[in-house]
Amino acid sequence: MSKYPPSLLFLIAYLKKLPGVGTKTAERFAFQLLNWPEHQLQDLAELIHKIKKKICQCPECNCLMEGSACLFCDETQRDTSIICIISSPKDVFNIEETRSYRGLYHVLGGLLSPLEGTTPEHLYVESLKKRIQSKKIKEVVIALDSTLEGEATALYLKEALQGVNISRLAFGLPIGSSLDFVDGGTLTRALLGRHNF
Amino acid sequence: MSKYPPSLLFLIAYLKKLPGVGTKTAERFAFQLLNWPEHQLQDLAELIHKIKKKICQCPECNCLMEGSACLFCDETQRDTSIICIISSPKDVFNIEETRSYRGLYHVLGGLLSPLEGTTPEHLYVESLKKRIQSKKIKEVVIALDSTLEGEATALYLKEALQGVNISRLAFGLPIGSSLDFVDGGTLTRALLGRHNF
Repeated sequence: MSKYPPSLLFLIAYLKKLPGVGTKTAERFAFQLLNWPEHQLQDLAELIHKIKKKICQCPECNCLMEGSACLFCDETQRDTSIICIISSPKDVFNIEETRSYRGLYHVLGGLLSPLEGTTPEHLYVESLKKRIQSKKIKEVVIALDSTLEGEATALYLKEALQGVNISRLAFGLPIGSSLDFVDGGTLTRALLGRHNF
Repeated sequence: MSKYPPSLLFLIAYLKKLPGVGTKTAERFAFQLLNWPEHQLQDLAELIHKIKKKICQCPECNCLMEGSACLFCDETQRDTSIICIISSPKDVFNIEETRSYRGLYHVLGGLLSPLEGTTPEHLYVESLKKRIQSKKIKEVVIALDSTLEGEATALYLKEALQGVNISRLAFGLPIGSSLDFVDGGTLTRALLGRHNF
């Protein structure tokens, strides 16, 4: 490995910073890049160079946006009586893909985690409160991960947002799953949440 | 997915071209890149921009090199009586890592494949013949993949390089393997190649 030319070594070191990419994969990526035509490399370099300048956070909902108008804050297109709380900008796209939600979003910017030092002051909670008041929101949907941190954050929000109608995503069996492969916690929640059929 | 800002969509499309990277992984990569500090993005863009200009093929052995001197052709450091034939520049680094070979290399630039239209004229065979004659090579080690294409190329080289001592990598059980998980072909080669113990 130490025999790689220095530029290749640097490139591999950078590619290894990507999530889930180890040395072997980074090496494969680097050798693949060497085989790309020159103009594609230029395009990719240009995109990486400018990505942070082109894409910014919407000052209102903290979603990602390019240009001056946030698609998710467009009041002519969205239902402004309901707001969905998510932890990161990526979650917006996951929810949009389902095509079953047309309301507003609010990105918290993380989840409460005493271990990592994330406290309520690190999250966009104050701006959320202000939006709920000024927009006359009727329902707040909490769509956070079902992890320890997600649970803690949901409980915190329930306290912090008193006075407004709060709902959470349903817990239960994933679609297409077999009971054999579902963990006990999920099965418990599915049983407790059973409904008339 | 169509709601992604255009720059992000382009970046995801480019990242998907990397080997083994699908849409989901490319999206994770892109969002991770958005979280990188600005200077790291600049460095990565710069590396990708210049990688093809900095790294070139050694005109002698076709290995990758940076600068003007090829490490693997340095006659003061290498055993010039033996030459190892590999298909791609990456294989050099795999073999170097074993630290059990100190001879010269010759990158063929591919393997014979009638289906993909790779014929002997597409490989660096003529330059190999010239090197073998001019360097007074005593042994040629064929280190090609043990695939159909690798076998065909090895047989072709055996014919083409008559008059010089040719050897091939050993076939047999991978180290650490259990007989249970070894395929029939490998086991056959391991039996045929058995040696006194």
